[in-house]
Amino acid sequence: SRTYRIVTLPGDGIGPEIMAEAKRVLASVGRAYDVEFACEDHLIGGAAIDATRAAGGPVSALPDETLEAARAADAVLLAAVGGPKWNDTTPGAVRPEQGLLAIRKQLGLYLNLRPVRVYDALAQASSIKPELLKGVDVLIVRELTGGLYFGRHERNHDVPGAAMGGGAGDTALDSMEYSELEIERVVRWAFDAAERRRGHVTSVDKANVLETSRLWREVAHRVASEHPSVESEDMLVDNTAMQLVARPAQFDVMVTENTFGDILSDEASMLTGSLGMLASASLGDGTALYEPSHGSAPDIAGRGIANPIAQVLSVELMLRYSFGMDEAADALAGAVDDVLAAGWRTADIAEETTPEERRLSTSQMGDRLIEAF
Amino acid sequence: SRTYRIVTLPGDGIGPEIMAEAKRVLASVGRAYDVEFACEDHLIGGAAIDATRAAGGPVSALPDETLEAARAADAVLLAAVGGPKWNDTTPGAVRPEQGLLAIRKQLGLYLNLRPVRVYDALAQASSIKPELLKGVDVLIVRELTGGLYFGRHERNHDVPGAAMGGGAGDTALDSMEYSELEIERVVRWAFDAAERRRGHVTSVDKANVLETSRLWREVAHRVASEHPSVESEDMLVDNTAMQLVARPAQFDVMVTENTFGDILSDEASMLTGSLGMLASASLGDGTALYEPSHGSAPDIAGRGIANPIAQVLSVELMLRYSFGMDEAADALAGAVDDVLAAGWRTADIAEETTPEERRLSTSQMGDRLIEAF
Ligand SMILES: CC(C)[C@H](C(=O)O)[C@@H](O)C(=O)O
Ligand SMILES: CC(C)[C@H](C(=O)O)[C@@H](O)C(=O)O
Repeated sequence: SRTYRIVTLPGDGIGPEIMAEAKRVLASVGRAYDVEFACEDHLIGGAAIDATRAAGGPVSALPDETLEAARAADAVLLAAVGGPKWNDTTPGAVRPEQGLLAIRKQLGLYLNLRPVRVYDALAQASSIKPELLKGVDVLIVRELTGGLYFGRHERNHDVPGAAMGGGAGDTALDSMEYSELEIERVVRWAFDAAERRRGHVTSVDKANVLETSRLWREVAHRVASEHPSVESEDMLVDNTAMQLVARPAQFDVMVTENTFGDILSDEASMLTGSLGMLASASLGDGTALYEPSHGSAPDIAGRGIANPIAQVLSVELMLRYSFGMDEAADALAGAVDDVLAAGWRTADIAEETTPEERRLSTSQMGDRLIEAF
Repeated sequence: SRTYRIVTLPGDGIGPEIMAEAKRVLASVGRAYDVEFACEDHLIGGAAIDATRAAGGPVSALPDETLEAARAADAVLLAAVGGPKWNDTTPGAVRPEQGLLAIRKQLGLYLNLRPVRVYDALAQASSIKPELLKGVDVLIVRELTGGLYFGRHERNHDVPGAAMGGGAGDTALDSMEYSELEIERVVRWAFDAAERRRGHVTSVDKANVLETSRLWREVAHRVASEHPSVESEDMLVDNTAMQLVARPAQFDVMVTENTFGDILSDEASMLTGSLGMLASASLGDGTALYEPSHGSAPDIAGRGIANPIAQVLSVELMLRYSFGMDEAADALAGAVDDVLAAGWRTADIAEETTPEERRLSTSQMGDRLIEAF
């Protein structure tokens, strides 16, 4: 039987709890498909900051040995990082999310994939009227190692005239930079994906203002011309933020710049009313990384009540994109559907009408998913 | 009686039609308050491009004489610019929205104000569930002449390695730049406004990634400490995009960077389900500019069916912020409320159940507003 080596990064908050369920699910997938998943825990985020500080070496949210293990692995499964404990805003302080940004950059994970679909069983939890949610199934493709995130970040002190009143003060600069290559590889991925989906791509930019967007649009048009079976359109980012609320079902694949993708994918996740259900994949040329779209929820950490579904759906994406195990991935997605349709709920997705015996802890939800798989 | 000189910029599409109603409303406000509003039309946007091209001089979306008239005026009232006719994407082509960006910069309109409130009479038109819209009344303060819009915009050709496959290709760069002064004047305005409202400011940034955001946050905290009666919080832009959908009623005053404000204010406008009802004010040290939040709607131009309410509410903001005529402004806002409560509707805000005799053309809506005032 084949063995896959997975670096698991439980991180902070509810991370370890939901990761435990994902590992149990993985083990059961392995048994069913005669594959061995060898998981090895490593440190990232706040947990890494604490450990490296305790060790007396340089404090880091992404220790070298984590990065090396990730590089050598077949896939990385991350839970979540961050929490009030590490909210140190003094300049130069090491913060948990730096671990996330660093691992993206170091592994060359230039593409972030966020499938946003609405579970009929949960649609009533959305802020959006149910009739607008019918058929909502958007794949957001976000550029992840370029744009405004990874350009220059500079501060200048004592600049004459920079303060109110005309005195010297600080100025700051961030730059949004793209090469054709950086744009083309994600846009191309989006068009290829659309061919296997409903055949529609929305390329989001701000071409009436930004030069990077004008370059983005040129590349998108070139790639579009090579995909005659895909219908595509350009949409301005401000209009897209409107359209996601007004008519979310119009989108199939959406592709966009790093910051725009950060904002729009979070907006889109709210449409579903079930952030606890959304997973993401970060892909590049080497090892890929999979993680829930939600955060580390420090307020409920350690109580065994967190929803492990987004973490399990991260496993689904891993099976699909890193191991080509589409059948197993479909079965896992089906198990989630079945468990929800049967009315099983963790606290975050429970309705007033959910009977006591359908309310589950984190590990009970893990049990249900394994049974349904 | 006092005279105010207003430069009116009808622009493109439905612009001239809704501007005509705004002028009639203005005349009637003038009669009621013994003030003379001397309106003078000038060119901007596509109309200006056509006229300057016909005249054989340099093609411009903001002719010098428009800018000079605006500078000399007491206020500028703009309708909308743009349309498919001017969607020329060849590099160097003059486009209508350049007129808008140029007048903002040239008049030093560093602050854009977008009040987003939900009209009970129209709440059912929103995508959002009615129970979440109760009490939604957000004032979005967007920085308007800095940030990503007015930084460097550069293109480099034939950069080695910039194309897919490793060949030479293009790169592009936009920069987001801020000085303390640019941040402080808008943040200060937001806190002052909150003191006269519900006393809450949400300062939106991406301080976990951007240096401009970290500077923004420092300035916001300093200004907050000088406004002890105002409660304030920092919110990351991605989270804000979620919260606007999930719990829009939590916001009072929101203040943010130019691009973030562009995206979030459009998202917020959709909450109300009535983009045709939202106006904006752009303020600076000199002449201020007022305009609807919606565009030029070329698809319905010339048919006399456009909704003039956002244009009339732009007049309301002008009375308030440029002329200190708060009583007249309140009366005008009240007239809009009354007309809507009485069931009068233009096509864009009509419901299936709106009886034929309550459906109005652009000028009929103007009549109703003048009557109700
Ligand atoms: C934690 C933060 C740096 C990160 C981002 O902005 O990319 C997060 O919001 C995300 O979307 O994964
Ligand atoms: C037309 C465009 C340049 C403009 C902007 O992005 O500022 C518009 O979207 C707005 O919000 O007023």
